[in-house]
Amino acid sequence: MSLHPMCGVFVLLSICLISFTTPCYGGNILVFPVDGSHWINMKVLVEELHARGHNITVVRSSNSWYIAEKSPLYTSFTVCRTDDHFFSNHFLQMEREGASALTFLKLTKDFISMVSEGHFLWCEAISEIFDDPNRVKSLIDAQYDLVLTDPAVSAGVVLAKYLKLPLVLNVRWIPSGEGHFAVAPSPLSYIPVPGSGLTDKMDFMQRIKNLFFHSIIVLQQKFVVGPHYNALCDKYIEGGCDVFSLLQEADIWLFRSDFVFDFPRPTMPNIVYIGGFQCKPAQPLPADLEQFVQSAGEHGVIIMTLGTLVNALPAEVAEEIASVFAKMPQKVIWRHKGERPSTLGNNTLIVDWMPQKDLLGHPQTKVFVAHGGTNGVQEAIYHGVPVLGIPLFFDQYDNLLRLQERGAGKIILLADVNSQTFEQALKEVLHQESYRQNIERLSRLHRDQPIAPMDRAVFWVEYVMRHKGAPHLCTEAYKMPWYSYYCVDVMVFLLSAAAVLLLSTLAIFRFLCCSRKRKTKDKQH
Amino acid sequence: MSLHPMCGVFVLLSICLISFTTPCYGGNILVFPVDGSHWINMKVLVEELHARGHNITVVRSSNSWYIAEKSPLYTSFTVCRTDDHFFSNHFLQMEREGASALTFLKLTKDFISMVSEGHFLWCEAISEIFDDPNRVKSLIDAQYDLVLTDPAVSAGVVLAKYLKLPLVLNVRWIPSGEGHFAVAPSPLSYIPVPGSGLTDKMDFMQRIKNLFFHSIIVLQQKFVVGPHYNALCDKYIEGGCDVFSLLQEADIWLFRSDFVFDFPRPTMPNIVYIGGFQCKPAQPLPADLEQFVQSAGEHGVIIMTLGTLVNALPAEVAEEIASVFAKMPQKVIWRHKGERPSTLGNNTLIVDWMPQKDLLGHPQTKVFVAHGGTNGVQEAIYHGVPVLGIPLFFDQYDNLLRLQERGAGKIILLADVNSQTFEQALKEVLHQESYRQNIERLSRLHRDQPIAPMDRAVFWVEYVMRHKGAPHLCTEAYKMPWYSYYCVDVMVFLLSAAAVLLLSTLAIFRFLCCSRKRKTKDKQH
Repeated sequence: MSLHPMCGVFVLLSICLISFTTPCYGGNILVFPVDGSHWINMKVLVEELHARGHNITVVRSSNSWYIAEKSPLYTSFTVCRTDDHFFSNHFLQMEREGASALTFLKLTKDFISMVSEGHFLWCEAISEIFDDPNRVKSLIDAQYDLVLTDPAVSAGVVLAKYLKLPLVLNVRWIPSGEGHFAVAPSPLSYIPVPGSGLTDKMDFMQRIKNLFFHSIIVLQQKFVVGPHYNALCDKYIEGGCDVFSLLQEADIWLFRSDFVFDFPRPTMPNIVYIGGFQCKPAQPLPADLEQFVQSAGEHGVIIMTLGTLVNALPAEVAEEIASVFAKMPQKVIWRHKGERPSTLGNNTLIVDWMPQKDLLGHPQTKVFVAHGGTNGVQEAIYHGVPVLGIPLFFDQYDNLLRLQERGAGKIILLADVNSQTFEQALKEVLHQESYRQNIERLSRLHRDQPIAPMDRAVFWVEYVMRHKGAPHLCTEAYKMPWYSYYCVDVMVFLLSAAAVLLLSTLAIFRFLCCSRKRKTKDKQH
Repeated sequence: MSLHPMCGVFVLLSICLISFTTPCYGGNILVFPVDGSHWINMKVLVEELHARGHNITVVRSSNSWYIAEKSPLYTSFTVCRTDDHFFSNHFLQMEREGASALTFLKLTKDFISMVSEGHFLWCEAISEIFDDPNRVKSLIDAQYDLVLTDPAVSAGVVLAKYLKLPLVLNVRWIPSGEGHFAVAPSPLSYIPVPGSGLTDKMDFMQRIKNLFFHSIIVLQQKFVVGPHYNALCDKYIEGGCDVFSLLQEADIWLFRSDFVFDFPRPTMPNIVYIGGFQCKPAQPLPADLEQFVQSAGEHGVIIMTLGTLVNALPAEVAEEIASVFAKMPQKVIWRHKGERPSTLGNNTLIVDWMPQKDLLGHPQTKVFVAHGGTNGVQEAIYHGVPVLGIPLFFDQYDNLLRLQERGAGKIILLADVNSQTFEQALKEVLHQESYRQNIERLSRLHRDQPIAPMDRAVFWVEYVMRHKGAPHLCTEAYKMPWYSYYCVDVMVFLLSAAAVLLLSTLAIFRFLCCSRKRKTKDKQH
């Protein structure tokens, strides 16, 4: 087979991009994002929709970390929200302490109360809108075409129901775990539950573990998160509603994943995979950074960042890591906010912020030391850079596990990090050729799509506008009671029928036998 | 929202088409098609792949109905195959006789033996290739990149395994029924089994019926069809194999359906929907036909065809239909091969063959009277023409039911056709505006896709070439024993553990109670 690399998929992709970036519709979109790293994703989509000529309103909280009140991209709709203690660095210290059962229980308890508080405060904030006739009127008068929301916080889902608008989700997580679990059949035998640290190949004990983690999530939804939203539904939605059902009825799920990144699993017709939609070809680096990167020569560069939530690594960890970096022939760019480690080498540049995408796309970059947030992992795949992962919390271990399973990355737990283990792991990812080969294979697969993920995302948002929803892509399954869905009623009926048939046959048989015996007896007498 | 109809999706579609029709790869593809209407589909794809510069070899039987030995599109690879009695018109007569239980049983029996014979003869034909070292060598020497096959006859699937080649399916049916059932979870509570005549909204009794039809299909696979292929596997594939597993391992399923046509259901990452991929904009009609069509004036035209398998409708049915057509103010074009009905009107043109696509795309066409083959139904959706369906066999009733459920078509059973019922049904579809509105809505939805179905099909065939398969899109599920897949082992373990725990607690409790009682007794004594 002769291959012409310049034609085929890349030509197609670029042509599709041209046609997609022509603004065509002037729709009105109400965006309800989640703050933090989730906003980074949503903002990329907002930028693209804005470029396509849509008018966008973004609901933000008065104490937002990242979502600016004023922006050329959108009009903001600010809601008053009490400060929560959404994230505190004590999680990090606990991770460092290691994996004792006590730590795990404490982590789980703290995590659950943190989650509960976050959802409760958002439900409270939304109540305030619903209680203010002027604000409600302004939302209705704006004549939005749809609500676009990240359902990790599901208040936007209730808002869409309240305003009777089509609903598009920009999603990976829902309050009760991974999004798929709400809509697609998810056999626990080969679909690992988030947080379980399992892959799609599970032995008997691992399947028991998976079931255990699934139970935690179900209970969390039922008793911790669900009640906040259901109270909101009961108060403001006519006839009441269940937030889980509202999620299931969403028109389109723009799912921030794909099957180069995640394990294959059953899916649904209204799930559109947009994993890596935020990835773009690298732009040139600022001159000073380019000079630093080039000064590494043939050894190349290592980059390290632990995401947006981490203010500072525990000091002793930072010291250990710095001492390893100091020994390497590579140059290192490290996004680090804590105290300057005393063991820092001359080859290491500490920065407050780095142009991560552009560095990942730079041919000099050899390894990415990362916490394993979805964005970073997707960018590493897109640019084909092997990852040494130090997972901290949430889905980070699971994300990195997906790379490790494909031989494209390696995980080292924060509890295990010391100069020896870190050096060994770093050198392994740097020098073992298979890591680069595997991540480059993933990169090729990820880039080989009939249309780019961002174009797919924009297409389906506009599709929902054009057709005022997409109910024809939602199954009937969600409307059935569980015993009908699982055919329990049919099974009970058939088993009962079989039992009645069997017993009747036995009874008739016995009756016939007895009467014959009686006759024989009578004759004998 | 302001809408500019000339931009967006249509611009995109046409641009994608341009980029896709540029020949880019010179791959070698071994095609194993199924004859009859299935070949019509496969041929369209073969044409497109040929236009893209691929070399194609088509396996055909020596007694093929449609697949020519010589073609500018492909090299043929002819295998000797005994004549079967694959189809006989007695099915049609039985359909006409109506839906008695006896007819149903006779139909099912005849159908099953016909199916068994068809598969057996193909397995025999493939054996002959495997037994001939020269033919095997020629297949190996050709260095094919992949096998493209329609697994309704699964001999091509075994051939791919034998040649150790990646496998792409152009599929709707597998020997054991609808393709999805082999790979995606298919809850019987909302997924109607083919032949059941059910929709995705089932009541209790309908779910029992669905389970019954499912059982028939499972038994048919296990005892009628499966054994032929498994014998082939055991003889020629090292270590043996099961044809069902081979299907599950296919790299890509190009699925001839979509969710405008079919009810939404769970699906898998390697299933690519190409429903309607054969549809193209209408070409101008031949001058005489165009003149006939225009002569209908404002009343428009009715077109009727009952597919490729039907030589002749029962004469009395043809008479009844012709008498109704004669009364209509419309002009009628009727593809009819039987005796010329005596009641035929001047407005009715009987033809041996018609340019169906071009007629369906003609603005004068008002109603399509059809048997409900997948191709015809997809074309009716594409061109937005309401359908009056007379289903005859196979999936035709189910196909038409999908239109009827959306209010875009009406079914009349062959057993019920007489001049009165046919006239009433025809007038309803002609004059009730909702039929046209609904089929036009389906047409809009079908045409609104990020890339055209044919481009998607070609993309994924070439994808499999570029990456030498797509195993990363196949789940682990297929490798598990059923008791692990359904977590039966985990459940049995957990229930046993719970039982042991309960019994031990009871035993301890009883022991403690007894010993206390004994003590009290002792004291009393």
